[in-house]
Amino acid sequence: MADLMGEHFIGASRRKSADVFYAADPSSNRQLEPAFFRATSQDVEHATRAAESAAEAFDRIGAERRAQFLEAIGEQIMALGDQLVQRAHEETGLPLARIENERGRTIGQLNLMAAEARDGAWMSLRVDPALPERNPMPRPDLRMRKKAIGPVAVFGASNFPLAFSVAGGDTASALAAGCPVVVKAHPAHPGVSELVASAIVQAAQNTGMPEGVFSLLQGDSHETGQALAADPRIKAIGFTGSRQGGLALMKIAAARKSPIPVYAEMSAVNPVILLPGALKQDANQLGEAFAASLALGAGQFCTNPGLVIAPAGHDLAAFVASAEAALENTAEQTMLTAAICDAYERGLEAAKSQPDADAWTLNNRSETNRCRPALIKTTAANVMENEVLQREIFGPASVIAACETPDEIGSLLNCIEGQLTISVHCADADLRQAADLLPLLEEKAGRVIANGWPTGVEVCHAMVHGGPFPATSDGRTTSVGTLAIDRFVRPICYQDFPASLLPAALQEDVLEETPHRRDGRWQF
Amino acid sequence: MADLMGEHFIGASRRKSADVFYAADPSSNRQLEPAFFRATSQDVEHATRAAESAAEAFDRIGAERRAQFLEAIGEQIMALGDQLVQRAHEETGLPLARIENERGRTIGQLNLMAAEARDGAWMSLRVDPALPERNPMPRPDLRMRKKAIGPVAVFGASNFPLAFSVAGGDTASALAAGCPVVVKAHPAHPGVSELVASAIVQAAQNTGMPEGVFSLLQGDSHETGQALAADPRIKAIGFTGSRQGGLALMKIAAARKSPIPVYAEMSAVNPVILLPGALKQDANQLGEAFAASLALGAGQFCTNPGLVIAPAGHDLAAFVASAEAALENTAEQTMLTAAICDAYERGLEAAKSQPDADAWTLNNRSETNRCRPALIKTTAANVMENEVLQREIFGPASVIAACETPDEIGSLLNCIEGQLTISVHCADADLRQAADLLPLLEEKAGRVIANGWPTGVEVCHAMVHGGPFPATSDGRTTSVGTLAIDRFVRPICYQDFPASLLPAALQEDVLEETPHRRDGRWQF
Repeated sequence: MADLMGEHFIGASRRKSADVFYAADPSSNRQLEPAFFRATSQDVEHATRAAESAAEAFDRIGAERRAQFLEAIGEQIMALGDQLVQRAHEETGLPLARIENERGRTIGQLNLMAAEARDGAWMSLRVDPALPERNPMPRPDLRMRKKAIGPVAVFGASNFPLAFSVAGGDTASALAAGCPVVVKAHPAHPGVSELVASAIVQAAQNTGMPEGVFSLLQGDSHETGQALAADPRIKAIGFTGSRQGGLALMKIAAARKSPIPVYAEMSAVNPVILLPGALKQDANQLGEAFAASLALGAGQFCTNPGLVIAPAGHDLAAFVASAEAALENTAEQTMLTAAICDAYERGLEAAKSQPDADAWTLNNRSETNRCRPALIKTTAANVMENEVLQREIFGPASVIAACETPDEIGSLLNCIEGQLTISVHCADADLRQAADLLPLLEEKAGRVIANGWPTGVEVCHAMVHGGPFPATSDGRTTSVGTLAIDRFVRPICYQDFPASLLPAALQEDVLEETPHRRDGRWQF
Repeated sequence: MADLMGEHFIGASRRKSADVFYAADPSSNRQLEPAFFRATSQDVEHATRAAESAAEAFDRIGAERRAQFLEAIGEQIMALGDQLVQRAHEETGLPLARIENERGRTIGQLNLMAAEARDGAWMSLRVDPALPERNPMPRPDLRMRKKAIGPVAVFGASNFPLAFSVAGGDTASALAAGCPVVVKAHPAHPGVSELVASAIVQAAQNTGMPEGVFSLLQGDSHETGQALAADPRIKAIGFTGSRQGGLALMKIAAARKSPIPVYAEMSAVNPVILLPGALKQDANQLGEAFAASLALGAGQFCTNPGLVIAPAGHDLAAFVASAEAALENTAEQTMLTAAICDAYERGLEAAKSQPDADAWTLNNRSETNRCRPALIKTTAANVMENEVLQREIFGPASVIAACETPDEIGSLLNCIEGQLTISVHCADADLRQAADLLPLLEEKAGRVIANGWPTGVEVCHAMVHGGPFPATSDGRTTSVGTLAIDRFVRPICYQDFPASLLPAALQEDVLEETPHRRDGRWQF
C-alpha cells in the first residue's frame, strides 16, 4: 500500500507544484491528508506535450494492444484493494458497498471498451477498390478508416469517483480509440484520483504503452481546467458535471483558433410521466419505487427523477402519499461535498418559495452535509410558467406537476429543455396516449424508458447516456456504452496508397479479420 | 417546359415576397429574367414550420420509401431536360458538357444515398436483450437506433450548381436520414435552384412524401440565411462556401438557446508534396498533370491544388516550366460570378505583392469575368513566415514553395491549417520519407492522396470530403460519400419498450432484415 504523495502524473513521472489544497471528509468537514498540489499552466503544458508526443505511437500500436492496456488498468485498480475503497468513502461520503459496486462497474466498463476496441467496427473500415477501366474516368483505390482524434482532456465528475472519473467512461473510450488522455482530477476526490492514476500508469508500463499516454493534473481552481481546454495540443474534451462548468468549456473550445468538440454531460431533470391507467393500477407501488429512485445515492445521479408529470386527482394523491411514506423511512445520507449540500438547500428553498408550490420536506441537514428528500407539489401549468420549477435541483428533490387535462403532459414536455432520459409509466389502456407522446419523448431525450425509472445506467451496447442540449453539449453522442468510442475518432480517406504506406488496419490481411465494407457491401 | 416563376417553395406551395433580385450571366454580366423574390423572415418561418410538421411522418415512413423519393428526384431532374442544362450554363458560365457531367454525378449521388438509406447500417441498430435473472440487478431490454435529427437547413454552393446545391450531397444525405430540408438557394443560380426544387417537389408528390418535407427559399442577402440558421425549428446546418460564410453560421448556431451542429465546408489550399525521387523521375509529366488539375473548372474546386511543396532545384524548375507551358495553352475560362472573379484578382494581387514572391501569370481578364491561371513562386521559409501566402485564392492560382532542406516539408505542413486533402508524389526511393510524413498528413487533412491530384472527388463509401478546421467546421464528418448520412442522426435508447410502442426499425421482424448488433455481436 503506497502513501499518497499529492503529486501530478506527467506520463509516468510525478511532478510537484508550489500551491496546495486538501480534500475533506464531507461527513465531518474534516480536512484529509495529504496536501495535493495545484497544477500550474506549466504543468498543463508538460502534460499535453507528453500526450502529443505519445499520440502517433499509441495509434500505431493497434487496438489489440490498447485492449490489453485497458484490461490491465482494471487489474491494477483491483490491486489497489481496500485503500481505494476506504479513501473513496472518506472523500465522498458514499457508503463502502456503493464504492465497491462502482469499482466493479468501472472495471466492467474498461473490459467492455477493450472488447469494443478489438471488435474494430468503430474504425468504420471501408474499401472501394480501383476501377482502372471505368469510363470516362478510372476510379482510384479509396480506403477509409477512423483514426484517433488526438489528445483528449477528461474532467472527472464528483458523483462517481470511479465510474465517471480518472479511469471512467470518457478515459476508457478515448484510450480505446487511441487517444492519449490528460485528466483534470475532480478536487473533491484527489486521493482516489491519485490512486487510480497510479494504477493506469502501472498498467501502461506493464503493457508497454508509449510514455505520455496518460497524465493526471490535480487542482481546485478553474484556471487549470481552462488552460487545459484552451491548449492547442488537446483535440477533444470529455466532461461530466455542472451546467455552468460545461458551458464554460464549450465557450473556451469554440473560441480557440481551431475549435474542438466538447462532450459535456451537464444537467437534466429526467421527467417521469405517469399515465392514468398505470397510476390507477399501481399508485402505491409506483410511489414506493419512485421514492427509491429519488433517494438513491442521495439523489446525486445525473438521471435522478426530478420531475413527475401526472394527471391530477386521487390516484396522484395516493402516489404522492406512498412516496412520502417511503421517503420518511429513508436514512439520511451524506452528500458529496459541503458545496453540493449548500447548493441543494438553496435550490430547494428557491423551489419551495415559488407561488403555488406546496413543499413536502423533512428537516434537512440534521448532521453535517446530510440531506433529506423533498417533494415540491404543484400544477403542470405552474411549472410551464415558472422556469425555477423546471431547474435541476441536484439531490433527492422532485417536482410533482399535476395536469388538469391530458394535453398538458405534451405541453409541459414541449416547454422543458433537452433531457438525458424521459420515463413513461403506462398500462395497456395508456398505450395509445404513450404512442402519441413518443415523438416528443424522442425529441427531448437520449433514452426513453417504459415502466421503469431513470436511475441505473446499464453499461452495454445499446445504452445512450446523452441527450439534446443542455442535457449534453452534443446530442449526437453518448458517454456510457460502447458507442462512446465514436466521439474520439475522425475519418481519413487514403487514395491510391501503396500497401507499404497504408495504416495496418487497411492492409488486406488485417481487413479480412475486421468488419468492413467493400464497395459498400458488409464483410464479416 | 415550365416557365421560371421566381417564387419560393414552402412545401408544395409557391410563395411570393415583395423585393426581387436577378441572376446574371457571368460571361457577359447580362441580367437574366425572371425576377426572383427575396425571402423574408416570414417566409423562413413558413418553411421551417412546414419542415417541423413533416418531421415525424418523414421518419416513420421508413428508409425504403425515402429511398424511392431520392430516386424519383433523380428522375425528375433528368425530366427537366435541356432547360436545366441551358439555364445552369447561363447562370454559372460553366460549359454545357461540365453541367451534363455534374447532373450525372448529382443523380448518381441521389441513387447511392437511396441505397445507403436501404442498407440501414446508419441507424446503428443495437439490441441488448433483458436479463431478468441477472444478479444483483436484472438487466432491462435496451434497444438503440439512430433517428433523424430534425429539420436541416442547407446552403447551396455556387461552384457546383447541381452536385453541391439544391439536390446536392447535403440534401440527399439529410433526406435519406429522414430530415426535412429547407434550402437557402445560392443567389448566383436561382433559376437552376427553382428548376431542381420543382423536381424535388414533384418527386415528393409522386412518392407520397409528407407535405413540407422540402422547401426552397430564394434571396441574395445574408439576412435570410441568418434567420434560417437561428430558427429554433432547424436542428442542423449543411453549408458549402466561403470561410467567412461558414464562420458566420457557426457563430449563429453556437449562440442559439439550443446550439446545433454546423457542417460547413469552407476553405483549403490542398497542398501537393513532390518528393525528390518522384520529381526527378517525372518532372515534366507531373507539371502537365498539375496544370490540368489547377485549371480544371477555372480552379473553382474546393480541392484545387493551391500549394505545391517540393525540394528546390533543377527538377522543381523543370516541373514549373512544364506547368507554365501547359497553362499557357489553357483556354480562358469564365468564372462563376463577377464577385468571384474580382476576389480572385484581389487574392492574386495580394500574393504577388508579397516580398520574395515571384509571380508567373498571364494577362488576366481579357474578357468579362474570365481568369487565367497563375503561379506564385517562392520559398517554403517564406510561406511559413507569411500568412498571406498560406491563404486560399479561389481560382486557378497556386503557390510553389521550394524547400531548401527535406525537413522544411514537415515544418511547412505543421504551420498550415487543416485541409480537405494533402497529396504526396513519391517514387520508391521516397517511400521512407513519405512514411515519416504520414502522421502529419493524417493530422492535417481528411483525404490523403498518393501520386495523384486532389481534384476529382469520388462519390462512394470510402470518400472523406471533410477535414480539420478550417477546411470544415467539423473534422469528424464528410459531406461527400455515404458516411455523410451520419451527420443528420442522433442515437436514442428505448428501455423496456413494449413491442407495440417500439419504432418499426427496432421490431424483431425488421431487425432480422437489417444489419444490427445483438449483445454486441454483429447480425447480418
